[in-house]
Amino acid sequence: MAAASASDPKATAELVRKADLRTSARLMRDLDDLRPGAVEVMKHLYPHTGRAFMLGITGNPGAGKSTVVDALIHHYRQLGKRVGVVAVDPTSPFSGGAILGDRIRMQRHATDEGVFIRSLATRGHLGGLSRSTGEVAAVLDAMGYDLVIIETVGVGQDEIDVVSQCECAVVVTVPGMGDEIQAIKAGILEIADVLVVNKADREGADRAIRDLISMLELRGHDSTPVEIVRTVATSGQGIDELASAIERYRDRGVAAADQPGVGGITPRRRRRAQATLRELVVDRLRRATDAALAKRPELIDQVALRTTDPYTAADALVRGITPLS
Amino acid sequence: MAAASASDPKATAELVRKADLRTSARLMRDLDDLRPGAVEVMKHLYPHTGRAFMLGITGNPGAGKSTVVDALIHHYRQLGKRVGVVAVDPTSPFSGGAILGDRIRMQRHATDEGVFIRSLATRGHLGGLSRSTGEVAAVLDAMGYDLVIIETVGVGQDEIDVVSQCECAVVVTVPGMGDEIQAIKAGILEIADVLVVNKADREGADRAIRDLISMLELRGHDSTPVEIVRTVATSGQGIDELASAIERYRDRGVAAADQPGVGGITPRRRRRAQATLRELVVDRLRRATDAALAKRPELIDQVALRTTDPYTAADALVRGITPLS
Repeated sequence: MAAASASDPKATAELVRKADLRTSARLMRDLDDLRPGAVEVMKHLYPHTGRAFMLGITGNPGAGKSTVVDALIHHYRQLGKRVGVVAVDPTSPFSGGAILGDRIRMQRHATDEGVFIRSLATRGHLGGLSRSTGEVAAVLDAMGYDLVIIETVGVGQDEIDVVSQCECAVVVTVPGMGDEIQAIKAGILEIADVLVVNKADREGADRAIRDLISMLELRGHDSTPVEIVRTVATSGQGIDELASAIERYRDRGVAAADQPGVGGITPRRRRRAQATLRELVVDRLRRATDAALAKRPELIDQVALRTTDPYTAADALVRGITPLS
Repeated sequence: MAAASASDPKATAELVRKADLRTSARLMRDLDDLRPGAVEVMKHLYPHTGRAFMLGITGNPGAGKSTVVDALIHHYRQLGKRVGVVAVDPTSPFSGGAILGDRIRMQRHATDEGVFIRSLATRGHLGGLSRSTGEVAAVLDAMGYDLVIIETVGVGQDEIDVVSQCECAVVVTVPGMGDEIQAIKAGILEIADVLVVNKADREGADRAIRDLISMLELRGHDSTPVEIVRTVATSGQGIDELASAIERYRDRGVAAADQPGVGGITPRRRRRAQATLRELVVDRLRRATDAALAKRPELIDQVALRTTDPYTAADALVRGITPLS
C-alpha cells in the first residue's frame, strides 16, 4: 500500500500534515525502505517543518532516560502539548528492548492520540542512523507535534551527534554508577545543554552533582552555563523543574547564543541543516559504494588474498561509483 | 618529521616491518592525519599483513574489559607472544579515560617491548573509526605482533562492527548489572564467539550464566556453540581457560565454519576484506562530501531557511563531488 506515497506525493503530504496516523507511519516505513516515492513526499513536507521544538535526551544505559522521557510526555500532555518521540535507544522500552514493567508503564500513552512514538533500531542501519532519525523527526514535525523528543544511548558517536543537533540536549545521569561510567559521561557532557541527575533520592546524589559541577568547570568560561536538575522520574519528582530548565535554555538560546545570522538563520539551525544535508549525501554515497562493491567481487578477493592492497582497490572502486540515484 | 613516510615509503615500510617504534607510531599518526605519504607506506606493508591473530574484545562499560585485556596480555607474554593493542574504548585505561588505579596497573606493560598499545578516540572521527582501527591493526600486524587485541565499548554500531570483523570476538559481561543492561547485551550477544562472565566471584554469577545460556539458545541451532568462561580478571582467575576457549574457537573456525573458499580465502577473511575496502571508500566519500559542502554554503542556508528541501540540495551537492582524492 505504498501506492499512496508513490502515486500522489502531494496528497500524501497533505494527509501527513493532517497527522493521519496510517499515512504517516507508512511514510516512515517507506523512508526506511528507501522508496523513491517517499522522498517526493518529503519534498512537499519540508517547507512545513521547523515548527516543533526538538528535544534530545541521552545518557548511559541504566540512567533512567526512558522514565524521564515518560514523565516529560506526561508533563507536556497536561499542558495540552502534542508530543512525538523517536527512540533510538536499544535499552528503551519505547524500542521494545526493556523489561516488562517498563513496557507496561509506557502503555499509558498508547491510547493517547496526542502522543506518537516511533522506535528505530540502532543495528542494521549501516551508519544511516542519523539520516533515519532526522527523517522521522521531520515527519513528526510536519505532522504538527509541538515537541519532538529524540532519545538515544549516549555512547555511540552517531547517537551523540543526533542529540547534539537538537535544539536542546538533555543528558541524564545517576548517582554512584562508578568511575568507569563517569569517564564516558565526560564525553557526552560536552554536548549537554541541561543536565539531569535522576534517581536523586539515592545515596551519592550530592557527590554526583559536585562531580558534574567540577567537570562542567573544565568546559571553561566561554560556554553557556548548564543547569543541573535533580529528578526522581519514577515518581515525577523534579520533572516540572526540568521542563522549566529546558524552557529557560530555549529562551536564552533565542536571546543570546543563537543570534540570528544571515536571513534570520540561527547558527544552531544552520548547523542542523548542514548535518541533515551531509547525512543525506553520505548515506547515498554509502549505498552507491555497496552497489559498486557488489559489481566488483574480484576486488574483494584480491584484497583478501593480499594480491592488491585495499587503497589501490579503493581507487578502482571509486571510479565505478555513480551516486546519482 | 613525516618526511620519512613521504619521501621513501618503501624504506619506511621496512622500518615498520622491523617494528621500529618511532617510525611505526609516526605512521599511525600520519594515517590519522590523512597524509597521502602514509597510504603509500601502507601499500608496501599490506602484502606483509594477515599474519597476526585478530582478537576483538567488547562489552558494556564497567564489565572490566580492560582488566581482562590486561590479564590476557600478561598471559600471552608469559608464552613469549608479542601483543599489540588497539583501544577504542573511552572507558579504557589504555585510552587514558579511567581512574588512576587502573592506569597505574596498566603501566606494568609500559616498559615491555613485546607490547604496543595504541588508543583511538571515539569522538571526532566523524564515522571513520572503523577505517582508523583497521589501519592501526594492519600496522601492528605488519610490525610482527603475534596477536592484535582490539578493545571497544559494545554499544556503538561502529565499535560492534569492528569487533565482529575480528577472527574471534570476545564479549565480556558481569553478574547483576540489571535488566536494562541485559537488553543491550542481547544486541552484542549476536557477535560473540566466546563469552566471558567477569567478576564471577560476585553474587549472581550463576544466574548470569543461566541467562546467557537462554539468550544463546535464541540464536538457534545453526550457529556455532559459544563457550562461556568465568573470570576474575583482577586476580587472573579464569584467564588460562579464556585463552584456551579462544584457541579452541580458532581451531574450530579453521576446521569447520571458515572453510577455505576460492583461492584459499575463508568466508570470514573475505568479509573482513570487504569491510576494509568499504570503509576506505566510504571514508573518502565522506571527506569529499565535506569538501563539497564547504564550497556550497548557500545550499546549507537554503535548507536552513527551508527555501530548498534537503533532498533537492543533496542532488545538487552530489553532482559537485569528486571523490578521487
